Amino acid sequence: MPVFSDGELRDVGTRLLRACGAPEAEAALVASELVDASLMGLDSHGVARYPGYVDMALDGTVKPGAPVTVVRETQGTAVVDCGGNFGMVGGRKMVELVAAKARGPGIACVVSVHCNHVGRLGGYPQRLAEQGLFGFATVNSARPGHWVTPWGGREGRLATNPLAWAAPAEGHPVVMDMSTSMISEGKIRILMHEGKPVPEGSLLDAAGAPTTEPMGFYGPPRGTILPFGSPRLGYKGFGLSLLVEILGSTLAGVPLDEPGQTAAYVNGLFLLAIDPDAFGGRERFRGLLAELFAYVSSSPPAPGTDGVVLPGALDFSTAEKRRRDGIPVAEETWRLIVEAGRKAGVSL
Amino acid sequence: MPVFSDGELRDVGTRLLRACGAPEAEAALVASELVDASLMGLDSHGVARYPGYVDMALDGTVKPGAPVTVVRETQGTAVVDCGGNFGMVGGRKMVELVAAKARGPGIACVVSVHCNHVGRLGGYPQRLAEQGLFGFATVNSARPGHWVTPWGGREGRLATNPLAWAAPAEGHPVVMDMSTSMISEGKIRILMHEGKPVPEGSLLDAAGAPTTEPMGFYGPPRGTILPFGSPRLGYKGFGLSLLVEILGSTLAGVPLDEPGQTAAYVNGLFLLAIDPDAFGGRERFRGLLAELFAYVSSSPPAPGTDGVVLPGALDFSTAEKRRRDGIPVAEETWRLIVEAGRKAGVSL
Repeated sequence: MPVFSDGELRDVGTRLLRACGAPEAEAALVASELVDASLMGLDSHGVARYPGYVDMALDGTVKPGAPVTVVRETQGTAVVDCGGNFGMVGGRKMVELVAAKARGPGIACVVSVHCNHVGRLGGYPQRLAEQGLFGFATVNSARPGHWVTPWGGREGRLATNPLAWAAPAEGHPVVMDMSTSMISEGKIRILMHEGKPVPEGSLLDAAGAPTTEPMGFYGPPRGTILPFGSPRLGYKGFGLSLLVEILGSTLAGVPLDEPGQTAAYVNGLFLLAIDPDAFGGRERFRGLLAELFAYVSSSPPAPGTDGVVLPGALDFSTAEKRRRDGIPVAEETWRLIVEAGRKAGVSL
Repeated sequence: MPVFSDGELRDVGTRLLRACGAPEAEAALVASELVDASLMGLDSHGVARYPGYVDMALDGTVKPGAPVTVVRETQGTAVVDCGGNFGMVGGRKMVELVAAKARGPGIACVVSVHCNHVGRLGGYPQRLAEQGLFGFATVNSARPGHWVTPWGGREGRLATNPLAWAAPAEGHPVVMDMSTSMISEGKIRILMHEGKPVPEGSLLDAAGAPTTEPMGFYGPPRGTILPFGSPRLGYKGFGLSLLVEILGSTLAGVPLDEPGQTAAYVNGLFLLAIDPDAFGGRERFRGLLAELFAYVSSSPPAPGTDGVVLPGALDFSTAEKRRRDGIPVAEETWRLIVEAGRKAGVSL
């Protein structure tokens, strides 16, 4: 498997996106976000997305350079029109906006409209935590991404709808980033390519029967992914998924079938920031968080486990390793990236 | 099993709590909250709590009549000292406060200190949704309630840490209310009394080995409850539980071992309200929510299920039935209530 440095992959992405019409700063930002995900080992949200991003920019689905504008705001809220630009461009501005707003009333939230794929969700609250704030984020997807069935159903009505939070800590923030479904579509695809079954309780086939076969999901006819907690406690995952849907789209006033929101990657991003200075103060918050994290980590390991690992810790340690040793990129992924380069007129 | 009307049980509770020194309005409020939970079929959070509440009021653990005060606030936040009064007394004031605050900046949150058992968590966001707002709530418990192990561990470091949200809908709001653990302690107790095993993947014994025996949890030595999603995806439940702990205590500046916070029922309540008028407006929010709820409900039933049920719908239908037919109270529960009456000097 070819191995690249993160710098090389950033450069590749920046050149690709520049060639698709993205301004230099936007191209570098988007490439950097995807490379960060690859560094953390979250390959399905990493540079494997370059070809898709190039396609979307070339066919006009994504609008590089489109302005990001605040279309409605109060002191503690805003609706941000991301203009169909790359999701990270709007998402990054939303982080700055919500952080600034939270400093007034102590809490703020912002929601997106016309936002494309935002990438790794945890990166958004992570940036808030890096500023000493508490961050929370959710992201839903428009109807073509509705592969997850409500609990008790057998047709998709929700996306894998992740939620994430982050809190300040020594070194890196603690960053929790989870889908509210039993498995992501990306992982099913990987298992299919490896000829492996999907863990029990994750999928229904089109008739609504449990299956562990990736093709039971892909069909045709198409099956569904079960909500987190299934089969016995899937009502909880369903409830969390509805929360994500409401915060990401309903609150912003976006209907289920908004014209233009037709692609699977059209996201509704919700970001919330809380300023600890409105409560006990930043230093006290940091101190108490450190105590809490030490306390939960002190639970001795259960047999057969590696012990307690704080949310996000494995991702940050993978990033450290890959920054040092390079990022392995699957042959097929690299082939598709080179092909994307040909389409965009960039020789890689 | 004896059956009572909700009115009778409200009257019983009000008399009991009055006799323990609670002012009339507080006694009626607390009784009403517990009876509401009994109506909804959430018996572990209902009138079965009367004896414990009487004991706590009589021994001074709970301070009936204690004032609820705002100790720190900004435009969109507040820390509310519940004064050691019954948790519902402070909790209800926090609902009013966060609803009023949200009308300014569009979003607000409030956290408690010195708050006793708040009862059914879903009731708090439910009241926000009844006013047209979106409500979200979490509640943690002090260290004696830490029966839940972090994922990978085998000693308790967190409580069952529920989270809840509610959104406006026709008739009743949609109310999601879930623990972030595999099972609540109350349900383990019921299974133990019935001589039944606990579902697999819910418990570890004191050595950290999976067990389905209630006594494996109760010990001695004491075992632990696993986080929601265990065994395979318990890191998600762990992350959600940490979120609840941070919002409920860390944010408010409450350390793990605050003097006075020694009882298992000492809760840290976090309430968040979002005003849709800061976004697309209340009417549009209601309309889009109705469309969303209809859309997810239209997923046809999976074989062997009753089809899609919106969060909270079963609880509201149980309440309707019990309001009509009465609330069954277990013989032993009623015996303990009568005994509590004797302690408080009330003949039932």
